[in-house]
Amino acid sequence: MKIDIVTIFPEMFAGVLSHSIIGRARAAGAVEIDVTDFRDFSDNKHHTVDDTPYGGGGGMVLKPQPIFDAVESLMDAGKKPRVILTCPQGVPYTQELALELSKEDHLIIICGHYEGYDERIRQHLITDEISIGDYVLTGGEIPAMAIVDSVVRLLPRVLGNNTSAELDSFRNGLLEHPHYTRPFEFRGWTVPEILISGHHEKIEQWRRRESLRRTYLRRPDLLDKAELTDRDRKWLAEIEEEERRSPPRTS
Amino acid sequence: MKIDIVTIFPEMFAGVLSHSIIGRARAAGAVEIDVTDFRDFSDNKHHTVDDTPYGGGGGMVLKPQPIFDAVESLMDAGKKPRVILTCPQGVPYTQELALELSKEDHLIIICGHYEGYDERIRQHLITDEISIGDYVLTGGEIPAMAIVDSVVRLLPRVLGNNTSAELDSFRNGLLEHPHYTRPFEFRGWTVPEILISGHHEKIEQWRRRESLRRTYLRRPDLLDKAELTDRDRKWLAEIEEEERRSPPRTS
Repeated sequence: MKIDIVTIFPEMFAGVLSHSIIGRARAAGAVEIDVTDFRDFSDNKHHTVDDTPYGGGGGMVLKPQPIFDAVESLMDAGKKPRVILTCPQGVPYTQELALELSKEDHLIIICGHYEGYDERIRQHLITDEISIGDYVLTGGEIPAMAIVDSVVRLLPRVLGNNTSAELDSFRNGLLEHPHYTRPFEFRGWTVPEILISGHHEKIEQWRRRESLRRTYLRRPDLLDKAELTDRDRKWLAEIEEEERRSPPRTS
Repeated sequence: MKIDIVTIFPEMFAGVLSHSIIGRARAAGAVEIDVTDFRDFSDNKHHTVDDTPYGGGGGMVLKPQPIFDAVESLMDAGKKPRVILTCPQGVPYTQELALELSKEDHLIIICGHYEGYDERIRQHLITDEISIGDYVLTGGEIPAMAIVDSVVRLLPRVLGNNTSAELDSFRNGLLEHPHYTRPFEFRGWTVPEILISGHHEKIEQWRRRESLRRTYLRRPDLLDKAELTDRDRKWLAEIEEEERRSPPRTS
């Protein structure tokens, strides 16, 4: 896979693209990632990429020309890449969309700044507008990093342990169960006994039940879309009863 | 404000913390941001920070000791910072939460990795668990960047143009209206005539109406929580009718 990031702050990406999983995926040849500064494509002598908005008001708007020219310079003849705009007006990013993008050959991700993009970029250049969440950031660079990271980890050969990707939160529609590691006792707080019982089936049942409990308590909206068995539904009814009787807490 | 980031990948942050608005806010003294490597706090000679999970299964779990010790070393006696865990199981991050965090004196943000955190970190160390969205990332570093960016831009003196922060998407509960800048005609595509009319009141009305239209088409869920006037509701009814008659499109 090829990913092009189009930005006026290329320096912001060095750390994220060189370390951890993304850095290793690039080193292993699983993905090629380039960063293009669209200021280099400005056709005016001051290299400006923004201008005041038609109709007045505060802030600056990104001009169409530098972004059109930068993106078109990255396209291969005859091929249609996904051209993604990161912006708060986009469709909410989800794991399903990450999975869909991970199957593409070429992604071009445009990072916005200032008040926004000239509308003609939206209308005539891009294929997708994506929002990573309902909060305001100073630019599209961090959203681009989130998209790259979530997509790259799904590529073949990137995660050493394939079961890790499969077992992640959201893949089965529920939040993860609690995890514990050594020491058994830390500052007086111990690990649930079931986890050292050696009884694998009971451990799996405990994990599934706690996964249901956590989703019920924190993100009940996810339960509507999750794939639940009859046993899951029975457990959920029990959990609802248990939680009604217990004092409020975080879990 | 002071922000501490606790991570095993401190190098990932250099670019994001040095450039754009965050870099300028730090240079201007509006915020102090430090990155702490919790591997330095590991009490074993191999500096490991993770171990296999109790109960078996794939992946590694972050041990409690290095994270407890790293976070406690950053706390000032007698003061209670917000200690934030970035994880998919957290509460969904929103602009309201960004605004709340921007009023704190001290934030400590812990970046997770691997399968997750030992549950005792959740139970006994942190004050908040935050998820930046329903997608899976390889670690908590990019979510930490998103939280820092969204909070720092809300601090006093950080954004030069105060109206920019006020007018952003989500502040008034609607998506933004389209923006246009020069040239008036680009590749044959022109700017809506209303924006060059010079009639400020009509321009404001057009913008509000297009903001309502975009929210109606893309994120109708936001309309339930938005503050709408009687005129907004009348316009929404008109927009609904207009969109029913027009062919499908993206706007």
